[in-house]
Amino acid sequence: MKKTISQATIDRLPLYFRTLRLVEDEEMQIISSEELGRRLDITPEQIRKDLATFGQFGRKGIGYDVRELKNKIANILGLQNNWRLAIVGIGHLGGALANYVNFASLGFSVVALLDINKKIVGTEVNGIKINDSADMNEIISANAVDIGVITVPAGEAQSVAEQLIAAGVKGIWNFAPIKLTVPSKIPLVNEDLSVGLSALSYHMSQN
Amino acid sequence: MKKTISQATIDRLPLYFRTLRLVEDEEMQIISSEELGRRLDITPEQIRKDLATFGQFGRKGIGYDVRELKNKIANILGLQNNWRLAIVGIGHLGGALANYVNFASLGFSVVALLDINKKIVGTEVNGIKINDSADMNEIISANAVDIGVITVPAGEAQSVAEQLIAAGVKGIWNFAPIKLTVPSKIPLVNEDLSVGLSALSYHMSQN
Repeated sequence: MKKTISQATIDRLPLYFRTLRLVEDEEMQIISSEELGRRLDITPEQIRKDLATFGQFGRKGIGYDVRELKNKIANILGLQNNWRLAIVGIGHLGGALANYVNFASLGFSVVALLDINKKIVGTEVNGIKINDSADMNEIISANAVDIGVITVPAGEAQSVAEQLIAAGVKGIWNFAPIKLTVPSKIPLVNEDLSVGLSALSYHMSQN
Repeated sequence: MKKTISQATIDRLPLYFRTLRLVEDEEMQIISSEELGRRLDITPEQIRKDLATFGQFGRKGIGYDVRELKNKIANILGLQNNWRLAIVGIGHLGGALANYVNFASLGFSVVALLDINKKIVGTEVNGIKINDSADMNEIISANAVDIGVITVPAGEAQSVAEQLIAAGVKGIWNFAPIKLTVPSKIPLVNEDLSVGLSALSYHMSQN
């Protein structure tokens, strides 16, 4: 697999994947870059450039084979792994993520919830029981968790990351507003919801 | 203002801004691209390239003037507008956004919350009262709302977008998993939380 795919392209791949799945449900077998672009508000040129990064798919004047392209994108993104997530910190954001429907559409499943607050330990969110963070090792291992999602306050995030990695997670998705230090073999993605909002501000300021 | 700044650069500007603000609080007046890079896990080359997009700031062998650069980035992103947000749909995600601390650090304020569920209308989240969506026009206008944040289910999102625009918002930040149709003069940013998760999956699959 090539390592040269740009972050911007990687960020568009889940959008392509999800649209191709819808298109497949509509029983379309071939889709043009124009039609994909129309559905996604992305230029056909951008789509052809993105998809050309990982091989020749399109047939000139015909389009892309929907199933073939969908499977290829799933493979590039590693979605066939059906990664299993544990969320640590079940406040507003953790609760929102536990309920977020888009994850399942990409093959991710939330399998465990953890919190230190005894008042909510034992209750359920979206049918998943909240466990005590003190039992992290056992819960991560028993549920074969791949990805640790950190939605605790900034001051607790580094310690939670270390506990998650010690418990065996293979990747960290961090929502706490702090730079985490993790071993280089553990992929880490930091999420900052205000990035999208700042982009909106930028576009509003151009008017 | 140049229109040629890439989306990827725009997405990094809030990270630069936030770090520069911290650096300013530490009373540093000059920062090198190496130090900025170290704090952000971004290469100094990438930082110099991003910042060169909008003019000459750095002084060779010295660094960037912290306050000047911070103000310039705020200006490019339009943060000096101190945009006012209304969130429509106060479920888990709407509630999480109402509580999200990072917005304030960029000058955004959540000033109104709206929902159709009479059971929660009148209650408060983070000190802000939830109003009835039926009163949208009045609430948007009375609170001088600039940005409408849509966290309702997909089936209601288009109608909510139209109501928000009719009520006078100047931009839409959409979390509903659906493509919205809005007038071209209204900037729209779609947020999909699974994009970051897919990027993590990609990096985990490379190991």
